[in-house]
Amino acid sequence: MTVVAGGAAAARPRLIRAINEQVLLDHIRRSGPLSRTELANLSGLSKPTVSAALGSIERAGLVHATGQRTGSPGPAAILYEVRPEAGFVLGLDVGREFLRGAVTDLAGTVRSRLSVHTKAGDAMARVQELADLARTLLAEAGISSAQLIQTVIGSPGVYDPGLDTLTLTGRIGWDSPAVLAALRQEFGATLMIENDVDAAALAERVHGHGRGVESFAFVSVGTGIGMGLVLDGKLRHGSHGVAGEIGYLPFAEGSGSDARDARKRGSFDASASAAAVVRAGRRAGLRGASTAEKVFAAAARGDSVAAAVVAEEALLVAKAVCTVITVVDPDLIVLGGGIGQAPGFLEAVVDQLRRLAPVLPEVEVSVLGVDTVVAGCLAAGLDQAWQHLAGHRMTS
Amino acid sequence: MTVVAGGAAAARPRLIRAINEQVLLDHIRRSGPLSRTELANLSGLSKPTVSAALGSIERAGLVHATGQRTGSPGPAAILYEVRPEAGFVLGLDVGREFLRGAVTDLAGTVRSRLSVHTKAGDAMARVQELADLARTLLAEAGISSAQLIQTVIGSPGVYDPGLDTLTLTGRIGWDSPAVLAALRQEFGATLMIENDVDAAALAERVHGHGRGVESFAFVSVGTGIGMGLVLDGKLRHGSHGVAGEIGYLPFAEGSGSDARDARKRGSFDASASAAAVVRAGRRAGLRGASTAEKVFAAAARGDSVAAAVVAEEALLVAKAVCTVITVVDPDLIVLGGGIGQAPGFLEAVVDQLRRLAPVLPEVEVSVLGVDTVVAGCLAAGLDQAWQHLAGHRMTS
Repeated sequence: MTVVAGGAAAARPRLIRAINEQVLLDHIRRSGPLSRTELANLSGLSKPTVSAALGSIERAGLVHATGQRTGSPGPAAILYEVRPEAGFVLGLDVGREFLRGAVTDLAGTVRSRLSVHTKAGDAMARVQELADLARTLLAEAGISSAQLIQTVIGSPGVYDPGLDTLTLTGRIGWDSPAVLAALRQEFGATLMIENDVDAAALAERVHGHGRGVESFAFVSVGTGIGMGLVLDGKLRHGSHGVAGEIGYLPFAEGSGSDARDARKRGSFDASASAAAVVRAGRRAGLRGASTAEKVFAAAARGDSVAAAVVAEEALLVAKAVCTVITVVDPDLIVLGGGIGQAPGFLEAVVDQLRRLAPVLPEVEVSVLGVDTVVAGCLAAGLDQAWQHLAGHRMTS
Repeated sequence: MTVVAGGAAAARPRLIRAINEQVLLDHIRRSGPLSRTELANLSGLSKPTVSAALGSIERAGLVHATGQRTGSPGPAAILYEVRPEAGFVLGLDVGREFLRGAVTDLAGTVRSRLSVHTKAGDAMARVQELADLARTLLAEAGISSAQLIQTVIGSPGVYDPGLDTLTLTGRIGWDSPAVLAALRQEFGATLMIENDVDAAALAERVHGHGRGVESFAFVSVGTGIGMGLVLDGKLRHGSHGVAGEIGYLPFAEGSGSDARDARKRGSFDASASAAAVVRAGRRAGLRGASTAEKVFAAAARGDSVAAAVVAEEALLVAKAVCTVITVVDPDLIVLGGGIGQAPGFLEAVVDQLRRLAPVLPEVEVSVLGVDTVVAGCLAAGLDQAWQHLAGHRMTS
């Protein structure tokens, strides 16, 4: 780096201008449309400073005038809002059976949304299916890939930025550097990979029970098992990216547990996932219980064998939740996933928790649907896109 | 509150002065002794501003000139440091067998230190013993109780500031509002109660392996079981104060477990505390193993029955540590307590962790001794005292 005499001093006014622009962008993003007077009041900046900064971000195409506020005394005020077309974000959810995705504009309006049943036989074929889905989503939204500021893929497993590895992807089975390289090839440098359950927790924070809650754990139990942990308002990934990988909790005592599964995906996953519920049902002599859904349905119809399997599952999940309480003690637990959201399951878990846990926090069932992971990816992507836009203005 | 016109505007320069004073105090506390020039460089404040603020905190008795720095060109610079006698902090550790305590001055120098074997038959007698210990400590330090800015008691259990209750005190058995009232009566309004293992974690952060580490878990296994969790450099108490109460982890499978103990102090405590190790030894037919220490000594001498008990204990502790990793994934685990610090125990735990945990973080044995809880109480008390002094200057 070449240091030019006076460089730091000369950079200062530019830095201050960039910070002012960022402050106004943030206010408009959160509370817009807003007038210049409102922006001056919210930011504490003078009206001339607001006008100059607003002119600059308007010329950059980030905000535009959207109309006038009438009805108050004085001349009608021009209102500014984010220019939705200033950039787009792509969110993708890689499930074992389904690939889902959506494109949103910078104002948060979803422009296209799609789910496809995956037919991929291997990891590379899955990458291709994902790229095809992305192309279809962009075409439906009527935008080009150059207009994408950020792509976020929600995937099982752990992306470690230090090691640049994707591991513990379990049922998806794409723990290979070749997969990461192929994804980068298809989706470019802006690609972010977020754990799928962490993405769901972000969706819960933006759209669900987690709104305004300082700390909560989103515990997802279904085909797979995982947790997204929000502490002090921030998603915790952990030092090695494995925070929330509760499939590895050392509970192996479930009657549906499986040693081979435990080595691959962790003891608790092998004892309490949907596959373990099916195994437990079969081992208990339950007939026709080929899916966890059928076991739960049989229990709801009054089948006592199925009810015992469901009760054991509730105890296992309660133990996992008790663990989370004893370690971090969050304000709120949100249950998600096919099993976590099954009717009556919350009550069964809470009954066990009363007996096990030193305190009982609020426990809720997620009200978000199958598009939760995509919604979380879009939320993470929008945050990243705004940081990128703000950062770009700071350094340009 | 009466609002006087112009009050907010008038308060501003005073607030700025107070902030400047606080900034200088912080620098002197952390890096002192410092000269005016050094303080101006560190703080970015002008020399006249530094001189004015320094004069004010010197007149208040918080700092004093301590000598001159010679050897550099120009006139010798006067150095300022914290005036140690500006205030004192009392730290007390309430154990089941011992009461320990120390008094430190504001510069962090311990002025008196004492341990006594407790003879108290009940909670109120223990409060009296604690008050006697405090009086002796103050007398030995040559100060009056009026000079104490902060008292911190490290106790098993959970103080909930919202409910103003002390609960889960386990073996100490002082979960009663009367105890809290008696402690307030003896120690006054500045009393803070900190969980004993949380206090040990604070000591570990200031004096031990936790120095400069962003996130770590101090896992203490001995007479009792507990954890102090530091995330993003801050001790996490949790929403109900129970973060780290890992005695309540739902592991009940140890051969030394006890159902009555589990109801009183949690399943994991009842399976893995020192008493559980003794029970496991007795149930396995081990003779003369009246304490956990004796069981560990027998294992070290090559007794295979004792070795099996110790191996089972290592597995249980590894399960608890695995739980902490899967939930929050800290940079570092520190093992403490009589069992956690036993020779060779770390290696046995790490061997099990390799098999159980999705990643293996650094694991260390605490090098701090019996005065750890007191050291943590003093560290917490000093932080609080400085906040109090700074806050007092902000509002006075």
